[in-house]
Amino acid sequence: MSKNQNLGVMIVGVSGAVASTAVAGIELLKQKTIGTEGLPLAAMPENLTANLPAYENLVFGGWDMSDEDLAAAAVTHNVLTLQQFQAVSEQLEAVKPLPAVCNEAFCHNIEGKNVRVAENHFAAVEAVCNDIRQFKIERDCERVVMINLASTESYIDKNSQTFATLADFEKALGENSNEISPAMIYAYAAISEGAAYGNFTPSVAADIPALVQFAEQRGVPLAGKDGKTGQTMIKTVIAPGLKTRALKVAGWYSTNILGNRDGLALSHPDSLKSKVMTKGSVLDDILGYTVEDHLVDIRYYRPRGDDKEAWDNIDIVGFLGQPMQLKINFLCKDSILAAPLVIEIARLLAYAQRCDESGVQSQLSVFFKLPQLSNEAAEKPEHALHAQEAMLVDWLTKYAAQPTRGKGRSKKAKAASE
Amino acid sequence: MSKNQNLGVMIVGVSGAVASTAVAGIELLKQKTIGTEGLPLAAMPENLTANLPAYENLVFGGWDMSDEDLAAAAVTHNVLTLQQFQAVSEQLEAVKPLPAVCNEAFCHNIEGKNVRVAENHFAAVEAVCNDIRQFKIERDCERVVMINLASTESYIDKNSQTFATLADFEKALGENSNEISPAMIYAYAAISEGAAYGNFTPSVAADIPALVQFAEQRGVPLAGKDGKTGQTMIKTVIAPGLKTRALKVAGWYSTNILGNRDGLALSHPDSLKSKVMTKGSVLDDILGYTVEDHLVDIRYYRPRGDDKEAWDNIDIVGFLGQPMQLKINFLCKDSILAAPLVIEIARLLAYAQRCDESGVQSQLSVFFKLPQLSNEAAEKPEHALHAQEAMLVDWLTKYAAQPTRGKGRSKKAKAASE
Amino acid sequence: MSKNQNLGVMIVGVSGAVASTAVAGIELLKQKTIGTEGLPLAAMPENLTANLPAYENLVFGGWDMSDEDLAAAAVTHNVLTLQQFQAVSEQLEAVKPLPAVCNEAFCHNIEGKNVRVAENHFAAVEAVCNDIRQFKIERDCERVVMINLASTESYIDKNSQTFATLADFEKALGENSNEISPAMIYAYAAISEGAAYGNFTPSVAADIPALVQFAEQRGVPLAGKDGKTGQTMIKTVIAPGLKTRALKVAGWYSTNILGNRDGLALSHPDSLKSKVMTKGSVLDDILGYTVEDHLVDIRYYRPRGDDKEAWDNIDIVGFLGQPMQLKINFLCKDSILAAPLVIEIARLLAYAQRCDESGVQSQLSVFFKLPQLSNEAAEKPEHALHAQEAMLVDWLTKYAAQPTRGKGRSKKAKAASE
Amino acid sequence: MSKNQNLGVMIVGVSGAVASTAVAGIELLKQKTIGTEGLPLAAMPENLTANLPAYENLVFGGWDMSDEDLAAAAVTHNVLTLQQFQAVSEQLEAVKPLPAVCNEAFCHNIEGKNVRVAENHFAAVEAVCNDIRQFKIERDCERVVMINLASTESYIDKNSQTFATLADFEKALGENSNEISPAMIYAYAAISEGAAYGNFTPSVAADIPALVQFAEQRGVPLAGKDGKTGQTMIKTVIAPGLKTRALKVAGWYSTNILGNRDGLALSHPDSLKSKVMTKGSVLDDILGYTVEDHLVDIRYYRPRGDDKEAWDNIDIVGFLGQPMQLKINFLCKDSILAAPLVIEIARLLAYAQRCDESGVQSQLSVFFKLPQLSNEAAEKPEHALHAQEAMLVDWLTKYAAQPTRGKGRSKKAKAASE
Repeated sequence: MSKNQNLGVMIVGVSGAVASTAVAGIELLKQKTIGTEGLPLAAMPENLTANLPAYENLVFGGWDMSDEDLAAAAVTHNVLTLQQFQAVSEQLEAVKPLPAVCNEAFCHNIEGKNVRVAENHFAAVEAVCNDIRQFKIERDCERVVMINLASTESYIDKNSQTFATLADFEKALGENSNEISPAMIYAYAAISEGAAYGNFTPSVAADIPALVQFAEQRGVPLAGKDGKTGQTMIKTVIAPGLKTRALKVAGWYSTNILGNRDGLALSHPDSLKSKVMTKGSVLDDILGYTVEDHLVDIRYYRPRGDDKEAWDNIDIVGFLGQPMQLKINFLCKDSILAAPLVIEIARLLAYAQRCDESGVQSQLSVFFKLPQLSNEAAEKPEHALHAQEAMLVDWLTKYAAQPTRGKGRSKKAKAASE
Repeated sequence: MSKNQNLGVMIVGVSGAVASTAVAGIELLKQKTIGTEGLPLAAMPENLTANLPAYENLVFGGWDMSDEDLAAAAVTHNVLTLQQFQAVSEQLEAVKPLPAVCNEAFCHNIEGKNVRVAENHFAAVEAVCNDIRQFKIERDCERVVMINLASTESYIDKNSQTFATLADFEKALGENSNEISPAMIYAYAAISEGAAYGNFTPSVAADIPALVQFAEQRGVPLAGKDGKTGQTMIKTVIAPGLKTRALKVAGWYSTNILGNRDGLALSHPDSLKSKVMTKGSVLDDILGYTVEDHLVDIRYYRPRGDDKEAWDNIDIVGFLGQPMQLKINFLCKDSILAAPLVIEIARLLAYAQRCDESGVQSQLSVFFKLPQLSNEAAEKPEHALHAQEAMLVDWLTKYAAQPTRGKGRSKKAKAASE
Repeated sequence: MSKNQNLGVMIVGVSGAVASTAVAGIELLKQKTIGTEGLPLAAMPENLTANLPAYENLVFGGWDMSDEDLAAAAVTHNVLTLQQFQAVSEQLEAVKPLPAVCNEAFCHNIEGKNVRVAENHFAAVEAVCNDIRQFKIERDCERVVMINLASTESYIDKNSQTFATLADFEKALGENSNEISPAMIYAYAAISEGAAYGNFTPSVAADIPALVQFAEQRGVPLAGKDGKTGQTMIKTVIAPGLKTRALKVAGWYSTNILGNRDGLALSHPDSLKSKVMTKGSVLDDILGYTVEDHLVDIRYYRPRGDDKEAWDNIDIVGFLGQPMQLKINFLCKDSILAAPLVIEIARLLAYAQRCDESGVQSQLSVFFKLPQLSNEAAEKPEHALHAQEAMLVDWLTKYAAQPTRGKGRSKKAKAASE
Repeated sequence: MSKNQNLGVMIVGVSGAVASTAVAGIELLKQKTIGTEGLPLAAMPENLTANLPAYENLVFGGWDMSDEDLAAAAVTHNVLTLQQFQAVSEQLEAVKPLPAVCNEAFCHNIEGKNVRVAENHFAAVEAVCNDIRQFKIERDCERVVMINLASTESYIDKNSQTFATLADFEKALGENSNEISPAMIYAYAAISEGAAYGNFTPSVAADIPALVQFAEQRGVPLAGKDGKTGQTMIKTVIAPGLKTRALKVAGWYSTNILGNRDGLALSHPDSLKSKVMTKGSVLDDILGYTVEDHLVDIRYYRPRGDDKEAWDNIDIVGFLGQPMQLKINFLCKDSILAAPLVIEIARLLAYAQRCDESGVQSQLSVFFKLPQLSNEAAEKPEHALHAQEAMLVDWLTKYAAQPTRGKGRSKKAKAASE
């Protein structure tokens, strides 16, 4: 098998702004009408990335509560320029979302009609597994990666006994426990099918010990959580610099305004809690002390649509205890920042699987607000963007130096097929 | 000899805002009325910095065209709070600037009456050497470091034949060449006396090959140039982050307003040219491509006094070629940012000399806008703040691991004294 | 009687940051160590203001839940420079707050021990009346004005039947109704004593019909409410300009960070509701249409103390329906902006009373976020700052042109004394 | 004759971004695909504007050094959305610029080939007059208005003896004086033909006494100069508000970045001088005192194209002499702000002529950075935007109340035709 085979990317929330932008981007890259701006791995030395699935080999599918095909979705989200839309509308039209597994207790403010009603949790899992198997065959994929881009779920306690071991979790599945969220159903199904799983949302899903254990057993890589795109990305660039200069952060006020569907979902307090929690600890972890006045606001503000704006005010204390201020205003585009990271996560998870890596892939920390770790009790996540990038480069360098690894089917896969 | 002996810090421009703030800061640290905010080495693991001269052992002197003692200067510069001033006014009063070597052709807009008129360049050098020797004895210093904090000199071509070798330079000295600037006179004198030399200004002085050669011959460490304090510091934090995300910089407009004596000097176009040149290449070097629309303005604006404000607008291009903007507004205090760096440079140069290092100390890059390199033809300077910090940490780690080094007089010094 | 007699200014919340700044300001003006920056009437043509009480004739007293004298309060609030504090500390020390009338049901987050426990509402009114009478005699005042600077009270419905007529209100007083808030007790007492009443807070108090009726009966001027200092003041400057250019406001996001006692009180949701409501309608009233996405946030953020910062993002639509953005960042000082308005309100209310005006003084609109009107059902408040200023100038011009008016005791007062 | 007849708008610089946006806007209004956002008179009470030429009756022509038709120009300037362009491309294509009168001594940085070479000044005037006469006939216009939108000319001294009287000026014309700029040629020709003249650029042209005298003689209205669109417009909104609150402006730093052809022309120092001068006095005139530190920068910055960004920092001093700061960031679109003002100026000049007004029309001040006055020696221009708006509303109200005026041909015109 060659690296030219298709990599299937199945997205939970495939009609969303980020997913439709990612799909459009890959099509535009194939047409060579856009460059590789915003794609982090495209800017790295080629020898490090030569064995990753090519951008052009990504094929997309997935689930959504909306039944809009991706052309219709792209019109709604209004991220593409008119020329870009016209250039890829046919290809976007061809991507039609499968009906989503949905559970009203976990999803707020978003009405959807494209929903699969499953009798119980196991039936839901089986339905998702079937979707994966069928997509893999239809699109002739070497492998499939699942990426969670669904709206943020309500906050749940991942340390619940229900999630402690795979056995506990499967017992709860069987009992149709209402502690189990849709995101967990998807993740469980992905792992069952040997599909690597990337969690781009703040939802706790693959974080739970039961699913980490399951992924390790099945040789499936995991990565998460919460894509680090706008304000938090900038925060993890600025904070290390302030630390280098020993400038004490006395307060950091962050506010965000955004007007897309993601913003609407966040206007529900429960979803906001999940979101703000993934934003919270970043700063203290980088600085090495607690910033008492670290405030984070997110407001749904329609005039901007998918454009997003962050304003940060940082109060710092320098030599002689004297105060200074740094203010950062980021006028960004949510999907434009997020979509290329989704693409890179998919490629890297597929590559990790080829290299026989399984379980949590902490070298993907650079893409996440709250990097998932293999051993959360023992380790602390790295948040500084430059240090996270170094982790990824080191990992890529290691496999680039092993010419027999990561170039085709994995050993396990080969063994299995022989 | 123990590490508790005095480190003499002789400053060219000792009545300026930065110097008087540094002197006040050390006195306040002795009184334990301020913390170590803003002092980068104080935030590092103690084992790395244990053998450096203690903050409390720094003693200050130097030259200035103004004859104000540092208490009077501190009133003029208005950087200290009233309480801070009252706490150290006596100690500041005791620091009286020696008359400066001045040459009207190189210094603009600054009128000074505290000037030493020397018959010729050699006589000027001898006068500075004498000042250093006398200060060392009077203040009982283990060693002396010279720091250049004078106003920016006019831009000169450091590749002139006059500066190519030590022999060329000394010939020009003898001929009283008007290519030789006051800053070169000071640097030449410092090296003659075995005093390490740090250049915190944009002036070309110790950059010239002749003086690098001289420093290497005499076993004297050098470091420069142009302290990286406000806008450029932030620039070297932000730009690497944009590179990590492959966000293309389409334009970067930087403007500064400041109202101190430094700002007044920069209102002379020649001085501004030196300044803007040290700010210029930073961005392209970090990003790896040329930013065509990189504009840098500096304006003298009195309402702020020593407070300084930078506003940056960055136009970036992301995925799908779509534009975004990042704006940074830094309300900072020039001397509050600069003074602690001056202190650390002095300590590190003294430590480097103890460790028998000589010539250009590129591990001090983290403190400079345009880091001086040993071999400018072959190497490229590192500008990313996090990478510069790593260079310094690596160097400190190397010597921290050599218990017999850097703890007292250097081998050379010992050999010389036997 | 001459205009040189004292004007007594009795403040509810006299130990707060605004009150102590106002008192200090008047003392510094007497010493001629500050100019008249920030005092709107000082910048007007002198003929318009010649008959107002002189700044130097203001004498201050009042009530507070804190028993700190104003020197201690000024240290807490940290608004004065050290020199300013030293220059007036003796005078500030002399102002000791009378115990406050307090009712736990209406005041949140603020613990106070300097509280007068009254048996019932009438007893509380009588206590306040006594305080006013005694202050007037002790400080030899021509008249007394009461200004409400207490922390914002919980939102109440001013259209309740309890407040509909003076008779209703007095009946409820007698029944010790818990609908009656402390602010109403103070206002009722002031009017009883013939003291004009200015409401600088968002609390509904003198807005209620019962008290307006009472004030008209007794010949007492009223003005309110909610001092227009920072963000809203700027909003009422910018919005008329956008209207002049027919630039449509598609959205306006306003956020505030502040760290003083006022900010702490606002962190209680009920108080915040009162505050945000007074900020809300301003924009729509000026523009003449409803701005759907008008969001206002206020956050308690300690690093700033009394300094306050507002950030506004305005999305506007221009010719061809094309979007533009205007962003405003106001780094202001709450008490520095508020205190001079309090002083001017006191002077103008006293002058209005001299001129035999009674009831609501809408010509004072320029000082308030939500100007009180005589006939709220029939009129709409003017919010544009320039139009409000014109209202005040017109009113001043009218009385300046009547040489026999407003120069001494009022006709009514004269008649009463004859 | 009815008000439905065409108003010919002949533009000097008709291929520029502002002109092509104005033409496109009128066409889109006819198609009812855009609203009237940004058109100041459309937001006024209808009775005030009922007798003005209708937006739909404007027909455009003019001169340009570029020979691009307006469709090609619109592609270059990139102001219209793609849909807007497609909707009006045919109509834009029909507007082809007449060759411009050009004189290399006055026009910088702009290369043009669509130039009329006239033997001497009188021949040039005659050529322009002919163009006007022919356009009026071809497009069946009731009257023609000329608007100057050409690139800013070099600064000249309008008090030169050459410009003192009409006789002096005509003598200099005959002598082919090189003091006479192209803008003066156009203005002289317009007045000769009875066409009202509006100067939207900073160029001194109709400001000179000779041409004012000529316009008064011929019954032709004039208005200028320099359209008040972005930063200066906001400045004249903010400054009056600061004055109302007696907040002293200690410094005002304004910087602009823009990337259109206008920005390129301004990169020539002479043109910049004209521009900065029209921006300069505004602030002091409004405030009533001189702001010593009022700095204005304009930088050519390509990434923005026609988008323009202004950043203002205002240092203000409030009560107790304490400093505060206000910062304003305006992300605007040059042509989107300018084009509707051009349209309104044309309509108002035509209406003024109908009402028999002639000479300088100071009631149009609201549209200009440096309003032209009838008697510059005696009067001071009004700069506050709200006061300028009031001047215009008063004037409109006056003529709206005179039912027999301003509804058709003027008395003079009628008399002339009889």
